[in-house]
Amino acid sequence: MRLDSEEAFLELVDRYFPRMRRGDAGGRGDDCAVIPCRERLCISSDLFLEGVHFSRAYFSPRDVGYKSLAVNISDIAAMAAEPEGFLLNLLLPAEVPDGFWPEYFLGLAELAEEYGLYLAGGDLSRSGQLGMGITIWGSPNGFVPRGGGRTGDLLFLLGEPGLSAAGLDVLGRGRDPSEFPEAVKAHLRPSLYVRQARQLGACPGITALMDVSDGLAMDVPRILAPGTGAELRLGREDLHPEVVACARLQGISAVELAFRGGEEYALLGAIDPSFRGRLHDLAPEAQIVGEIVQGEGLSLNGAQVQIQGFDHMRGG
Amino acid sequence: MRLDSEEAFLELVDRYFPRMRRGDAGGRGDDCAVIPCRERLCISSDLFLEGVHFSRAYFSPRDVGYKSLAVNISDIAAMAAEPEGFLLNLLLPAEVPDGFWPEYFLGLAELAEEYGLYLAGGDLSRSGQLGMGITIWGSPNGFVPRGGGRTGDLLFLLGEPGLSAAGLDVLGRGRDPSEFPEAVKAHLRPSLYVRQARQLGACPGITALMDVSDGLAMDVPRILAPGTGAELRLGREDLHPEVVACARLQGISAVELAFRGGEEYALLGAIDPSFRGRLHDLAPEAQIVGEIVQGEGLSLNGAQVQIQGFDHMRGG
Repeated sequence: MRLDSEEAFLELVDRYFPRMRRGDAGGRGDDCAVIPCRERLCISSDLFLEGVHFSRAYFSPRDVGYKSLAVNISDIAAMAAEPEGFLLNLLLPAEVPDGFWPEYFLGLAELAEEYGLYLAGGDLSRSGQLGMGITIWGSPNGFVPRGGGRTGDLLFLLGEPGLSAAGLDVLGRGRDPSEFPEAVKAHLRPSLYVRQARQLGACPGITALMDVSDGLAMDVPRILAPGTGAELRLGREDLHPEVVACARLQGISAVELAFRGGEEYALLGAIDPSFRGRLHDLAPEAQIVGEIVQGEGLSLNGAQVQIQGFDHMRGG
Repeated sequence: MRLDSEEAFLELVDRYFPRMRRGDAGGRGDDCAVIPCRERLCISSDLFLEGVHFSRAYFSPRDVGYKSLAVNISDIAAMAAEPEGFLLNLLLPAEVPDGFWPEYFLGLAELAEEYGLYLAGGDLSRSGQLGMGITIWGSPNGFVPRGGGRTGDLLFLLGEPGLSAAGLDVLGRGRDPSEFPEAVKAHLRPSLYVRQARQLGACPGITALMDVSDGLAMDVPRILAPGTGAELRLGREDLHPEVVACARLQGISAVELAFRGGEEYALLGAIDPSFRGRLHDLAPEAQIVGEIVQGEGLSLNGAQVQIQGFDHMRGG
């Protein structure tokens, strides 16, 4: 199949995404998609660009498909919402081989099916850079914003801090990926916490939820209500062994790697300590990483830290 | 002001878009925006890329701001819906001067204010190519899909066919823009038909509406119900004088330019002929350009035409 026209490309999309095909009123191909909603919708849009968010040197086309959608699903999970549908904007350089795209759509469709998501529409254009922009939406379930963490709340994490950053280091430096299988997977195909987040969102003790896309150092301050700070405790013994091993190769502290590493898509939350048992029931994998205290500032294992993390303008 | 960090950039955005600022729950800066809706939402996403959709050689930064949103508003109008809010993804090459962005946001905010639109969120990333991806939504008013035109319906147009294509030709070839002021304006700052489309959408005789983004040659077939065709009548005397003048300079027929020219964002509709008077009342500027007939095929002024228009993969 030659993808030399818009028509050929749209036929390929129809093959992987049978719902809301072209020709359906309000489906793909109409001026707008017409989607169902109830009172409020959570909506988010993210770019996923080659050279910034991924590299074809170590992302397979199928991994690109998976992760381009996964980072968006993570945003919906962070609102304790249920993902429902998405729009896909594709930037198509002429030099990308046609064979890339069926694999890309396969990775995208596999993840979409896992969460029951439909592709409602989008746009495609020739461009100088390979990339995607995905807009995702879902219904909130009494949504939980970011900045609601109160003094005395415990901070918890679903996901392994530093593991994706370790994976990026392994892949980017050409280290042997078979020695870091879970780190590599965390970077290429991050775990998602949609079900856990929805259950936690319905728990009255939860005061804030967010996804850690820029690293704990930058994201922990964002979960705090004004006038509060956080005391984080991250022990080397709490970290994933591949984080510890990768930090040793890099000659940095494993705790530092876990604290600064971005693109984790872990779920960070704040909870009233009297609901600690409920947290354990709903999400046994949740790890308590600190607590919220009065007065602004951030400390890590007792030492005050300067806040500096991942900045999308400065690259990373 | 130096736009050397994500923070500086987001502060600039907050200055132009005060609603749903960062810090508001479910506003910009949260994992998702939380937006109100009723039962159904019309939603659309489009790319607007330098070198494909615009050139800084003749688009001022403010024009880029205007048009990047206008093409999206046109999609909402084409559903006879009311535009409400949007998400903005920005691709930011390091070489674009900081002074571009306040002007860009000014053009964007002016148009957003005209239609009462709020900016709910988005993403930004360094990239090799300047561009935007905008996702827009609005509430449908008993939405009117594309492919509903029936045998006997009249085809009508709001907007001047070929005028934007003429403007692109003038700008792209470096002809004197002061001799083609309306063509240039149609290309840089296309007119929108939101109010008229909403009123037409509520008229029972309307069977289909869409925006002509790829040119009449490609878009007329899309408005037709299966098994129907169209007989188009476009007289040289019906065309804008700047279209006629530009076609003469290009050495092509003005009717051909009007028929093939893309990126018009004119509004194309089909209406039961017994509602012709109502059409004239609701949109006096509507021009009847033909009618729908039994049997597939497209004719222009009595001659059968091959369908070939603007293809985003082939460039244009």
